[in-house]
Amino acid sequence: MTLKLYELAGEDGTSNCPFVWRTKYALAQKEIVYAVETCGLVDIPQILGGKHRSIPVLVHDELEIGDSWLIAEHLDQIVPDSPSLFGSLGGKGVVRFFGNWLNGTILPALSSLYVLDLANRVRQEDRIYFRTSRESRMGQPLEQAVADREDRLPAVRARFEPLRQTLTASAFIGGDTPNYADYMAIGVLIWATSVATMPLFAKDEALLPWINRCLDLYNGLGRQIKLPGLT
Amino acid sequence: MTLKLYELAGEDGTSNCPFVWRTKYALAQKEIVYAVETCGLVDIPQILGGKHRSIPVLVHDELEIGDSWLIAEHLDQIVPDSPSLFGSLGGKGVVRFFGNWLNGTILPALSSLYVLDLANRVRQEDRIYFRTSRESRMGQPLEQAVADREDRLPAVRARFEPLRQTLTASAFIGGDTPNYADYMAIGVLIWATSVATMPLFAKDEALLPWINRCLDLYNGLGRQIKLPGLT
Repeated sequence: MTLKLYELAGEDGTSNCPFVWRTKYALAQKEIVYAVETCGLVDIPQILGGKHRSIPVLVHDELEIGDSWLIAEHLDQIVPDSPSLFGSLGGKGVVRFFGNWLNGTILPALSSLYVLDLANRVRQEDRIYFRTSRESRMGQPLEQAVADREDRLPAVRARFEPLRQTLTASAFIGGDTPNYADYMAIGVLIWATSVATMPLFAKDEALLPWINRCLDLYNGLGRQIKLPGLT
Repeated sequence: MTLKLYELAGEDGTSNCPFVWRTKYALAQKEIVYAVETCGLVDIPQILGGKHRSIPVLVHDELEIGDSWLIAEHLDQIVPDSPSLFGSLGGKGVVRFFGNWLNGTILPALSSLYVLDLANRVRQEDRIYFRTSRESRMGQPLEQAVADREDRLPAVRARFEPLRQTLTASAFIGGDTPNYADYMAIGVLIWATSVATMPLFAKDEALLPWINRCLDLYNGLGRQIKLPGLT
């Protein structure tokens, strides 16, 4: 097989393009020998008949692939006997990253919207502890902390964007089947939307099909709890 | 084996705790039968001798595990013949999520710091195109766009926090070995720090050992390019 990688070159003739570099690492892991062709930004409409709008482009025999993700998938397919670029051993660390993103970005944002609703759900004997610990952390009464929550809702919804993008490409975060990343995410959504007195999502929220798939898993495990604040 | 899950209960006796729910999903995938014990927030110091500071706690025979991530790892170990909660098929979707986070959170932030440095790296014949396309996108001259970049640097560094947390637990984002998530991330760092005239990271940046491990991969692939703006 003959492979050629079109790289984006700077003034010194080398490339620092992040999408080129991820492709070079993927080619290196797969131990693939390839030729390099450099071009500049304004050359892109001139190469390969102007069919590609960005670099890198990988040309494999007659096939041209003009997207770094599709290139990585292709490399996994043509060198299947070496470790996958995505799966196997690799999964766990990335799932851990997902959990860190969820706990650092989504959980505190939902807490800031629903801390008063959460306070009203805990047992009577837990209420003083819940309120005093949260108010001490936030430096203000719960009522004050959520007073502007409608204004903050659009920014909280925006935080889910990397998740929405991911779920346009696969049924679950884990891929065709769910994994612990899905469980972490649906757990956080169950927590917030089971108490929310202001709906978290709009009726046309793009995440809803995935949310419903998660709630249906394992004989409807997630249907055991009502989620009045979902939409 | 005998398993008991300590759940955090609200006033109605059920749990909406996100860390309990991710554990319930993990137990369901592994088809594990377990008993449930509910408790409230102020009960935590009273259960199991006060050894655990949070719920869930999984008690498996004599073993007590008081952290949901460690519980998931344990479940993978005791039911190894069913699909992993983390790896295999699942890896790919989560790697895709990582790429979406990187492209949506890190890449634009670095671009906002280094767009002028990037403009100075492209070929002479690309400079007019680079400058006009970026200035039109940002609605201001490149010089103005980066004028306050020192003030914005701490917030950009903070965006790497989920990555720092992940890399306290494993050598690579992929786990013990690197995968495409590592390649995407190091590619973005190469892109920015090869041109940066203001260092991206402090000398004691916690990501540096991982960055160096990545640059060393595949006979020092990443050492082919100088990164004067790394620290």
